[in-house]
Amino acid sequence: MNSVVDDSKEGRNELKLASFLPYMLASLAQDVSTELSTIYAQQFELTVPEWRVLANLAEHDTLNARQIVETSSMVKSKVSRAVQSLDQRGLITQQTASGDARAKDLSLTEEGKALYRQIAPKALAWERSLLDGLTTGEYRDLMYLLEKLQTRVDEMKKGDE
Amino acid sequence: MNSVVDDSKEGRNELKLASFLPYMLASLAQDVSTELSTIYAQQFELTVPEWRVLANLAEHDTLNARQIVETSSMVKSKVSRAVQSLDQRGLITQQTASGDARAKDLSLTEEGKALYRQIAPKALAWERSLLDGLTTGEYRDLMYLLEKLQTRVDEMKKGDE
Repeated sequence: MNSVVDDSKEGRNELKLASFLPYMLASLAQDVSTELSTIYAQQFELTVPEWRVLANLAEHDTLNARQIVETSSMVKSKVSRAVQSLDQRGLITQQTASGDARAKDLSLTEEGKALYRQIAPKALAWERSLLDGLTTGEYRDLMYLLEKLQTRVDEMKKGDE
Repeated sequence: MNSVVDDSKEGRNELKLASFLPYMLASLAQDVSTELSTIYAQQFELTVPEWRVLANLAEHDTLNARQIVETSSMVKSKVSRAVQSLDQRGLITQQTASGDARAKDLSLTEEGKALYRQIAPKALAWERSLLDGLTTGEYRDLMYLLEKLQTRVDEMKKGDE
């Protein structure tokens, strides 16, 4: 861990964006998101936040907007706009939860579920295509390292509170 | 590559967000970005796009807005707003490039460079802290895998054009 090799994580004292992890992650995530969105934007006219809300509700059945913000790391205003638009299109329903008028329970309508079932296999196929050049071992390493970083940043976040 | 193990990249036929790469990357990148921003948001009153424009200009000396959009994968409107705000604060200058009145050459002022020199070491220290739990080998694997994915998504992007 006390390497003096220049490209080791301790060895750099100059910030180069191409190898600065926050920047690499931001660019990659943005490009991946934009490319994936071609699958559902053109054919199904969904925005990125709308797709994420749809996918979260497909997985968890019922969530309120705050829970979607927490699990997805999306900005609150984007989630709110997505919820409104999905509601207007009849893809989700909003029910006032007992005791808290602000935290409405959101869930997919039958139409929302049907739309999700059309998109999900295409999204998985797109992911497989993205992962084409990776061996099974590299894929496992990637999952492990991303989860490790997520755990670390969650710890740092808690440290701020 | 023809593994039948459930958690291999070929074995899944149900979309689970927690292990769906585009979603994992989006959440991690967002959390990393938000956490890193505590370094420059409070003390130096910069937004995420403003910091990225600053860092790009520190590295490349002169760029126009279109080039910043291309290298950073940021949305055009965010880059435009950041450029305006940095200009108003006297951190960058805009010079009309020869022949094209729309593509202004942007560069840091002395004040912009001084601000960048204050933030860059803090950003690198924050990155080191994020990478704390990773061995040198894991760090190298991570860089390699992220670059491989970036190359792949760039190829897919070109395929769409």
